[in-house]
Amino acid sequence: MKLETLGRHILIEYYNCDEEVLKSPELIEKHMNEAARIANATIVNSVFHHFNPYGVSGAVIISESHLAIHTWPEYGYASVDVFTCGDKINPWTAFDYLEKMFGASRSESIEVPRGMTEKIKKFHPNGEDLGKIVFKPDAE
Amino acid sequence: MKLETLGRHILIEYYNCDEEVLKSPELIEKHMNEAARIANATIVNSVFHHFNPYGVSGAVIISESHLAIHTWPEYGYASVDVFTCGDKINPWTAFDYLEKMFGASRSESIEVPRGMTEKIKKFHPNGEDLGKIVFKPDAE
Repeated sequence: MKLETLGRHILIEYYNCDEEVLKSPELIEKHMNEAARIANATIVNSVFHHFNPYGVSGAVIISESHLAIHTWPEYGYASVDVFTCGDKINPWTAFDYLEKMFGASRSESIEVPRGMTEKIKKFHPNGEDLGKIVFKPDAE
Repeated sequence: MKLETLGRHILIEYYNCDEEVLKSPELIEKHMNEAARIANATIVNSVFHHFNPYGVSGAVIISESHLAIHTWPEYGYASVDVFTCGDKINPWTAFDYLEKMFGASRSESIEVPRGMTEKIKKFHPNGEDLGKIVFKPDAE
């Protein structure tokens, strides 16, 4: 079977990571942007925040949706979201890359379909007139 | 029973929304920031991008995690994430507010626990030494 959706969203829990990496805003920003790039995403903007005493939060907006992160260095834990649209991106590339960069000894993930086309049509008053519902990359 | 987690993450699908709202970067940014505020979150930074021909993506970093959005005005559809930590925030306030602002005639959501403390301890080499795992708000 084939599920038609606008996007796919991976929710990741990285456990027992390298504390020094998780507490560095520079490294987190670098790794998150690189994760987007190697997943074949087009980065449009990003924002990162360093918390006091430590911990980093941030998001990378990509043409194909976003990546987000929150780190708890003191617990060796990071939560990451990789939400992508379209077929040219593989979110699992980002997953693998970050797992390695963070030195996570254990990772867990779930994938959630976002924007299921059948529902978008069903709940729209003129659903059948919408035509084929597809993700259209940024026209620039 | 009580589930101990660092955060809670609501994944929302808003259907049959007001197309004019979904295509306005100004309104989306305004509503997302206001949703964070009325949910009692502390906004630290935000980033929004207007796609060509239309559609808006953005994220609001809050001290207690983040909110993110992607809109498809042509389908009346928006995907929203509300990820919050700590007990002082109620993500469902943001959910209700955005549902109303977007004029969504139908909404769906799932809630995913993020950073389950039992797992963070289990997968940490010195898990028992971590003490009580709690979300500590930004010390400023």
